[in-house]
Amino acid sequence: MHISELDTPALLVDVDVMERNLVRAAEYAREHNLRLRPHTKTHKIPALGRRQLELGAAGLTVAKVGEAEVMAASGTPDLLVAYPIVGARKLQRLMALAARVHITVAVDNICTALQVSQLAQLAGQRVGILAEVDVGLGRVGVTPDQAAGLAVELARLPGLEFEGIAFYPGHIKKMDEAGEAELARVNQVLAGVLDSVRRAGLEPRVVSGGSTPALYSSHLVAGMNEIRPGTYIFNDKNTVVASACEWQDCAASVLCTVVSTAVKDQIVVDGGSKTFSSDRLGGGDGIGFGRIVEAPGAVFTKMNEEHGYIDVRNAERRFNIGETVRIIPNHVCAAVNLHEQIYGIRGEEVVETWKVEGRGKLQ
Amino acid sequence: MHISELDTPALLVDVDVMERNLVRAAEYAREHNLRLRPHTKTHKIPALGRRQLELGAAGLTVAKVGEAEVMAASGTPDLLVAYPIVGARKLQRLMALAARVHITVAVDNICTALQVSQLAQLAGQRVGILAEVDVGLGRVGVTPDQAAGLAVELARLPGLEFEGIAFYPGHIKKMDEAGEAELARVNQVLAGVLDSVRRAGLEPRVVSGGSTPALYSSHLVAGMNEIRPGTYIFNDKNTVVASACEWQDCAASVLCTVVSTAVKDQIVVDGGSKTFSSDRLGGGDGIGFGRIVEAPGAVFTKMNEEHGYIDVRNAERRFNIGETVRIIPNHVCAAVNLHEQIYGIRGEEVVETWKVEGRGKLQ
Repeated sequence: MHISELDTPALLVDVDVMERNLVRAAEYAREHNLRLRPHTKTHKIPALGRRQLELGAAGLTVAKVGEAEVMAASGTPDLLVAYPIVGARKLQRLMALAARVHITVAVDNICTALQVSQLAQLAGQRVGILAEVDVGLGRVGVTPDQAAGLAVELARLPGLEFEGIAFYPGHIKKMDEAGEAELARVNQVLAGVLDSVRRAGLEPRVVSGGSTPALYSSHLVAGMNEIRPGTYIFNDKNTVVASACEWQDCAASVLCTVVSTAVKDQIVVDGGSKTFSSDRLGGGDGIGFGRIVEAPGAVFTKMNEEHGYIDVRNAERRFNIGETVRIIPNHVCAAVNLHEQIYGIRGEEVVETWKVEGRGKLQ
Repeated sequence: MHISELDTPALLVDVDVMERNLVRAAEYAREHNLRLRPHTKTHKIPALGRRQLELGAAGLTVAKVGEAEVMAASGTPDLLVAYPIVGARKLQRLMALAARVHITVAVDNICTALQVSQLAQLAGQRVGILAEVDVGLGRVGVTPDQAAGLAVELARLPGLEFEGIAFYPGHIKKMDEAGEAELARVNQVLAGVLDSVRRAGLEPRVVSGGSTPALYSSHLVAGMNEIRPGTYIFNDKNTVVASACEWQDCAASVLCTVVSTAVKDQIVVDGGSKTFSSDRLGGGDGIGFGRIVEAPGAVFTKMNEEHGYIDVRNAERRFNIGETVRIIPNHVCAAVNLHEQIYGIRGEEVVETWKVEGRGKLQ
């Protein structure tokens, strides 16, 4: 099928670019002896998780129990739930899954750990546990000086296997001078954490971190032995603005149709916040909701739910009603979550259709 | 079922508040002899469309063909597709629907109208058509001076029934002094448009406009005889900030669980942009992603996909891990689109579960 036969808006993924992205990260991880455990929230598709495993990923990462349930179909040997799972019903579902695939969870407090321990015991399961440490993002995770204390408590709890430390350097948006300085700081914090945990008599077998913007600097973080990038499979405008890839490494774009040219110097396309998400650009000049592939000089200035406003004053070409444009989203993970399916393309041919099976799994 | 038995995040709708919102708008429309044709993109649920019709709505509005297909199940006698439908496949689907329910489409150019005309003829259907005019939003719609020309062209096309004029005053965010001045300007523009259309020998039977922020000023727009508010069924933080309702008129909130309290003066809840959308506040101080019902002094400062960061420094109470909070979203339409179902509540009892059948209908 030719892409012109697709109803728009449609999320396209160039399968060759995706494959290149996957291979590059896998080779990097292998070269530096890092376990690659991709975060699958970017694609939410078991078949793509399977491809990541085939190329050398050691396991997969998810955020929610519903995502874990979906991603188990990839055949992964283990799943890291890199999110605090709170509540008996969710933990029960997770324990049911633990009968089929090794589960590890990251926690930042003893209350949550006790809940996990209790449900693991009731289910007769043994669950891996990581102590989540805040290395500067200020989201979840204990402070570095609390890490060893938490680790000791975790290691004592029945039903749990203390595996190590988790952290997320999501505050590093770009590996420029400031980013490198921040990474050095993370490095220093982490060294202190690992030292304190070891002094407490525990060996953190897993030291799990990593993100897409800092992916190819991961070998500079001493002691980290596992990385969990997500976005790298597709990349997006944020990744380019972070200088973590080039435009030609962006595998995903949204095919949209021009539906109005009534307002001067503007086209309106049939994709807005319901298609792309309203995530702003997280770096650079912060302007725009995506890159127009056919005319990078055009600016995606504004969105409503179904309307994308594109300023074409500096566009390289004109667009008529009914013509299509491809737009690289600011944040591809958020865009994927809005689509029922993704179309794998090679050139202008649709060669795959994947259902986004993990879409909208909020619980 | 008690709401504490729901897995979070869960979208709750207070059915009594919703009913009051529906009745109020229906009574207002009746009193002022306005046809009420609610935009169903806010709820995306046929059963709620049916309730709107029972309370006096004359028909329903949708944006996409996929939404029209879903909303036909409400039993509505007619559907207005208030969005430019471009492309043969979509129009074919729309014509299939036109065999069951009267369809009206709004267009802002002759190319789109020709496509609709052609497919209507092929299907042996007669479709209502409205000339879309831009009254200041700058999104879609011909300029006011082009309206009569477009109307004349539409009226000539076979398969189409010229019904009148459509416009959307979405640039009026608040009925304050500036909003009232803008509404007066819309009024003036509209008078000119209607006059020019009539002078061209056509009677615009339908003059369709309206939005939630300006809903209760609709009777001040001379010549407008149909209103299409959407958000009014649930209301949201944007509606309150627009002074178009009070907090107690907000029927919808998202029940979230506190999953981390590790960072000082902050709680993290299990709903972020994948649960609420990342839509900013469209007025007021522009700060925050929603209102914490239990502690309005808390500030929902930041989001990632699954994490909501809430600054609790000025919160009226403390929150522990595992406790739930209800959060009124900035933009409820965008939030609804992210949920598989909505729970109707009365007090703390879940009395209804609605599947969001029109969710994610992008095409």
